[in-house]
Amino acid sequence: MKNLIDIKSLSKEQILEILELAEKFENGTAVSSCQGSHVALIFCENSTRTSISFEMAANKLGIHVYNFDTNKSSLSKGESLKDTIENLYEIGIQGVVIRHSESGILDKTKKEVNCQIAFINAGDGNNAHPTQALLDFYTMRKHLGSVEGKKIAIIGDIRHSRVAHSNVDLLNKFGAKIYFCAPKYFEDATQEVIFTKSLEEALKDADVAMFLRIQNERLEDRIPLFDYIHDYGLTTKKLQQFAKKDVLIMHPGPVNRDVEMSSEILDGEYGKVILEQAHNGVFVRMAVLDLLLGKQ
Amino acid sequence: MKNLIDIKSLSKEQILEILELAEKFENGTAVSSCQGSHVALIFCENSTRTSISFEMAANKLGIHVYNFDTNKSSLSKGESLKDTIENLYEIGIQGVVIRHSESGILDKTKKEVNCQIAFINAGDGNNAHPTQALLDFYTMRKHLGSVEGKKIAIIGDIRHSRVAHSNVDLLNKFGAKIYFCAPKYFEDATQEVIFTKSLEEALKDADVAMFLRIQNERLEDRIPLFDYIHDYGLTTKKLQQFAKKDVLIMHPGPVNRDVEMSSEILDGEYGKVILEQAHNGVFVRMAVLDLLLGKQ
Amino acid sequence: MKNLIDIKSLSKEQILEILELAEKFENGTAVSSCQGSHVALIFCENSTRTSISFEMAANKLGIHVYNFDTNKSSLSKGESLKDTIENLYEIGIQGVVIRHSESGILDKTKKEVNCQIAFINAGDGNNAHPTQALLDFYTMRKHLGSVEGKKIAIIGDIRHSRVAHSNVDLLNKFGAKIYFCAPKYFEDATQEVIFTKSLEEALKDADVAMFLRIQNERLEDRIPLFDYIHDYGLTTKKLQQFAKKDVLIMHPGPVNRDVEMSSEILDGEYGKVILEQAHNGVFVRMAVLDLLLGKQ
Repeated sequence: MKNLIDIKSLSKEQILEILELAEKFENGTAVSSCQGSHVALIFCENSTRTSISFEMAANKLGIHVYNFDTNKSSLSKGESLKDTIENLYEIGIQGVVIRHSESGILDKTKKEVNCQIAFINAGDGNNAHPTQALLDFYTMRKHLGSVEGKKIAIIGDIRHSRVAHSNVDLLNKFGAKIYFCAPKYFEDATQEVIFTKSLEEALKDADVAMFLRIQNERLEDRIPLFDYIHDYGLTTKKLQQFAKKDVLIMHPGPVNRDVEMSSEILDGEYGKVILEQAHNGVFVRMAVLDLLLGKQ
Repeated sequence: MKNLIDIKSLSKEQILEILELAEKFENGTAVSSCQGSHVALIFCENSTRTSISFEMAANKLGIHVYNFDTNKSSLSKGESLKDTIENLYEIGIQGVVIRHSESGILDKTKKEVNCQIAFINAGDGNNAHPTQALLDFYTMRKHLGSVEGKKIAIIGDIRHSRVAHSNVDLLNKFGAKIYFCAPKYFEDATQEVIFTKSLEEALKDADVAMFLRIQNERLEDRIPLFDYIHDYGLTTKKLQQFAKKDVLIMHPGPVNRDVEMSSEILDGEYGKVILEQAHNGVFVRMAVLDLLLGKQ
Repeated sequence: MKNLIDIKSLSKEQILEILELAEKFENGTAVSSCQGSHVALIFCENSTRTSISFEMAANKLGIHVYNFDTNKSSLSKGESLKDTIENLYEIGIQGVVIRHSESGILDKTKKEVNCQIAFINAGDGNNAHPTQALLDFYTMRKHLGSVEGKKIAIIGDIRHSRVAHSNVDLLNKFGAKIYFCAPKYFEDATQEVIFTKSLEEALKDADVAMFLRIQNERLEDRIPLFDYIHDYGLTTKKLQQFAKKDVLIMHPGPVNRDVEMSSEILDGEYGKVILEQAHNGVFVRMAVLDLLLGKQ
């Protein structure tokens, strides 16, 4: 493993290796093998959870972090990402964590550059967000053990969601049964999943219900929000009526409160798993950084 | 002590405990008890002194600092401060240093969040700026010993000044005699102090004359600056005519040169105490961070 | 050596001392003498290479770096650089690395401040960029040994280039023969160099051909870009026709691809020296920081 660009490029063995190392970092039985490395965070889109989580993971591993200010960088003088990254490598940066609005930009740039820097995808357009899928998988396994044969419902803005795409890639590898649930304007027919007609159908017997954020910043047109909330917003009542009692409610965050789900759910017992996702992300990212930059 | 939200919530004993620990950090007889902690700086308003001072204090204690870029964060995606902070806590952040334009936002958010993160106020609206009051007190005590019965004149834009409000809360606890001196448009009649009619009256026998910055960014209307400087701007002449020779001239900075006081004063002997305030702030903030995050 | 403001103020001995220490840092025979120091990076203009390079150098030396956000600082409240820097010094900052659009601002501010902070110039207007000239010299010496009597051609936007000005100052001290090559609108007649009429004349027998970036952000008028590329843009053909085979092609970066030179050159064998410049910059800056802040 030299880069982490998407889930598709990983084997099941590689994914399990990441998760096992993450577990060791969480319970304190692994130590950093990349102390003193240098990693740049290049976030060309807004982020809190992902960027702070990578920075925390790096700090815990003893990695020096360079917060690249994209507005004040040579990128804003018109330099290409290729040239910027080749220079960063010469300066001593060993890995770049990139978030960018353009789908596929990491793959494209990786092919252009002529150096051994590690590329780590922190979300590119609506293409992939591999560390999110890995931390989601880590969270599911803690609660469910294996996901094989389990029903995972993914609900909401699937079309614009790199999180959904990376989760589908990962969960399909491990034999989960994935169900999509979305209005027409959020559908994505390109994925290998089972399509449902209603939230009721999606929630029925689901082991996991993963709600996705409406990404207002990616929408071309306004959506009928009132209808969306009525049809797809999770309330305590719908949860009790349609879902198993031990269903896992997940969300990559930030949640649009009282849109994807009610504040009552978010602040209650079911909402705790969503915070646990943020918590688990740090150990998964420690594992990724350590495998890419370290000596193990 | 779990948080530092305002001076009102602190007992005299707690204030003295902070100051004594600050003194130990200054003279090198205390060591950090919070090595390896993680603290986020969330500055939603401009700052140099306060933010760099907190970062320096954290570095000296071996704390990892996360400079939260509020413009690129999930806050700008519409996430509430409550949700952001709960996520930061899950990621591993143990304390948040917050500066915000909204008065009372720390108190409000503290009540909303469901986690044990430490809140540290770096200035909220015109409400409170407790570490500034603490470092001012630390500076006064160095020069005056006790402030009991001492005359402290606070001059200038009192109405918009969280610095003034926190200083009044603190100095009243310790028996100082506080005098306010301000034009009508900067008055604040809600505080328990003695009101003066002129700079002459304020300076007369004063042990401390604390000048406040005109906060142009908080003014609704333009002020008659020419008259203000004439009536309230400190010059060498006024100082010699009205004040005791050993009066302490203080200012939280940044000073509007030749507005609150002349450059001659600022760059001369009397101006040195203002730089000393910045110097002392680091030790006071080390003490606050160590008491909130450490094991002592 | 207390500051690094320009090359003019350095003696030949001081320059060689910097280069020798840089070499030791590169081959691992010197250790930091400024562990635990505190340095602020104040970049009022865009930068990647220079700012990340200084940050890398500082990290390798165990220096704490403070990335000063100029848009969120007291500078944007109207505070002068003098007052900001005096306060930073009181807070514990021992050195400031400054990039600024105003020529001569470091020299001016250094004279105004009343404290022992070290000033390090990371580029001021079109005046000076001393660490760039030092790393260029370091790179030339690696390839050429001494520069005495060597022909160094500097080509392109000389008028707006602090890089050119600092290189001339340095190379003249060490007896190089400097040739300028530029269209009228980029000429600079104030320097002690030999002026050439064409790229052919500049490249003929040149040991080094240093191409400069067209600094679109500093131009008052648009330039005839098509003609510029025709007359001054380097292509493989011109290189083969006019230059010695072992000429060193240099550029401070970022390169405007297919303007100053073709992508074919940049991505080929000749382009490697340009990345080597970025690589060498880190060791040169380690040496500068260590000499200014350390105990050696």
